[in-house]
Amino acid sequence: MSRFALGVDIGGTKIAVGAVDAAGAVHTRRTIATDAEAGFDAGIARLTRAIDETLAEACVEAAALAGIGLGCPGPFDEASGRIENFYTLPGWEGNDIVTPLADRFGTPVRLINDADAALLGEALAGAAQGARVALMLTVGTGLGGAALIDGVILRGAANEHPEIGHLIVDPTGPECYCGGRGCLESLAAGPALARAGAEFGYADAEAVFAAAEAGAAPAQAIVGRSADAMETAVWSLIHSFLPEVILIGGGMGERHFALYREAAERAIARAVLAPAGAIRVVKAALGNDAGMVGAAALMLDDA
Amino acid sequence: MSRFALGVDIGGTKIAVGAVDAAGAVHTRRTIATDAEAGFDAGIARLTRAIDETLAEACVEAAALAGIGLGCPGPFDEASGRIENFYTLPGWEGNDIVTPLADRFGTPVRLINDADAALLGEALAGAAQGARVALMLTVGTGLGGAALIDGVILRGAANEHPEIGHLIVDPTGPECYCGGRGCLESLAAGPALARAGAEFGYADAEAVFAAAEAGAAPAQAIVGRSADAMETAVWSLIHSFLPEVILIGGGMGERHFALYREAAERAIARAVLAPAGAIRVVKAALGNDAGMVGAAALMLDDA
Repeated sequence: MSRFALGVDIGGTKIAVGAVDAAGAVHTRRTIATDAEAGFDAGIARLTRAIDETLAEACVEAAALAGIGLGCPGPFDEASGRIENFYTLPGWEGNDIVTPLADRFGTPVRLINDADAALLGEALAGAAQGARVALMLTVGTGLGGAALIDGVILRGAANEHPEIGHLIVDPTGPECYCGGRGCLESLAAGPALARAGAEFGYADAEAVFAAAEAGAAPAQAIVGRSADAMETAVWSLIHSFLPEVILIGGGMGERHFALYREAAERAIARAVLAPAGAIRVVKAALGNDAGMVGAAALMLDDA
Repeated sequence: MSRFALGVDIGGTKIAVGAVDAAGAVHTRRTIATDAEAGFDAGIARLTRAIDETLAEACVEAAALAGIGLGCPGPFDEASGRIENFYTLPGWEGNDIVTPLADRFGTPVRLINDADAALLGEALAGAAQGARVALMLTVGTGLGGAALIDGVILRGAANEHPEIGHLIVDPTGPECYCGGRGCLESLAAGPALARAGAEFGYADAEAVFAAAEAGAAPAQAIVGRSADAMETAVWSLIHSFLPEVILIGGGMGERHFALYREAAERAIARAVLAPAGAIRVVKAALGNDAGMVGAAALMLDDA
């Protein structure tokens, strides 16, 4: 029998739960509302029920699992299992999510940063399969990043997740909550486009993209600036990591993949010091499943 | 008996040769002129003599060595042993440096990028000892960089060395031979300061530093811009790698370490998303020996 792990992808809006086998295939799944404002206890109750149902449908006993991996937007404290994100998960911060699940299901439970989980999922069953050095940029409301080196997700000082999306692209750019100016997220994530678009009456980032495609010059300029930021960021990343493959994921990243790939490939084409033809730019393959599959992969690796 | 390797650090001006033990201690050494223009065969003859003398003085037989590591400015072709650097080593390019030494000494011989060798040396016996994730920036005529992750030097696509010194700091900055604009090397290495200083009659980068220390405003502005470039680059590097330690090395980097440390620490202090107190900035400890020790460490690791 194939070994299973339970992967959980906790987002600000939805939580996806799946029974995942060692090849990264999702056998059964549930999606529930996060509804963090309803409180942590209600959330744990909903999540527990979803896990019960997912396991029952897959005919897998909790005791037979390699474990439960929880992909979660940081920050959190891995050792204590405590969620510290009050931005995406308001009302859950300060609560230990690991212990109640470990006690209830009698299986190991671990937290993993959601961007790291997505890349781990892509490495197991998606667009980063077989890569020794891979980077993933997740473009959406934020700009997440993760690096895989020799099959291992890069964790830095204090075993923390590096925030690749906050590398600086333009030191004269807008201020970001990260403390820097002109980081990639501040220039290329959804809110940056929405902010710039609001001046011209566009409702949100997608409205800016639509107007740019329809030929509106101001919208094209906004989209162009975001692509330029991606080009500069990719330049710095290829000189820092020299990845074999760069994955672009996230809602915005996947919808407008052609734009980001073109920007990334402009950087790669100009990079005299990078080996020619050695760096690919690909769309993330698992879509919304990447984080769930990667969270499960974390436990399957441990097993 | 302690195991020895022979470390060779090939620079544009000098070649340092040392018999290095497994703890990274240099027992005997020779320094010879590179004099690449005199031709490759003359160079190999001089290097062979220096190795013979170094081994004889250490009372080590070539056959007992773990091998000979050659730290060398890139590019080179590791598989064929061919030097491809026509800038620092004019007259040697296209020549296989590995085979003649392997044949003559009957021991494994490997090439390693000089910046990578320096960090490997610092990891074995210098300022990166005990670090799991370390970066080294070597500031001088160029701006070299290397990354150590889980004790292994980061090699990227095609197993090549990433050129960390060419990450972009200011996309409106000067053009660089790397194909980019405003990379760290183009803004902060010696030639950048010399070029900016020439306008004000300063002979070279060190003259600019001296004038800045003596209070000359234009020199202070030039040095300040170089420090600002270092601050931005360190920002991007801590968000990409989240290193436990950043080593500053190289002639200019060590002479003006206080300046670069201050710049790096400004970036670290502002970085809200990096764990407080987790990133140290230190001066490289082995000075000119780092490359030689690291080249030897490469062979000791293999043994």
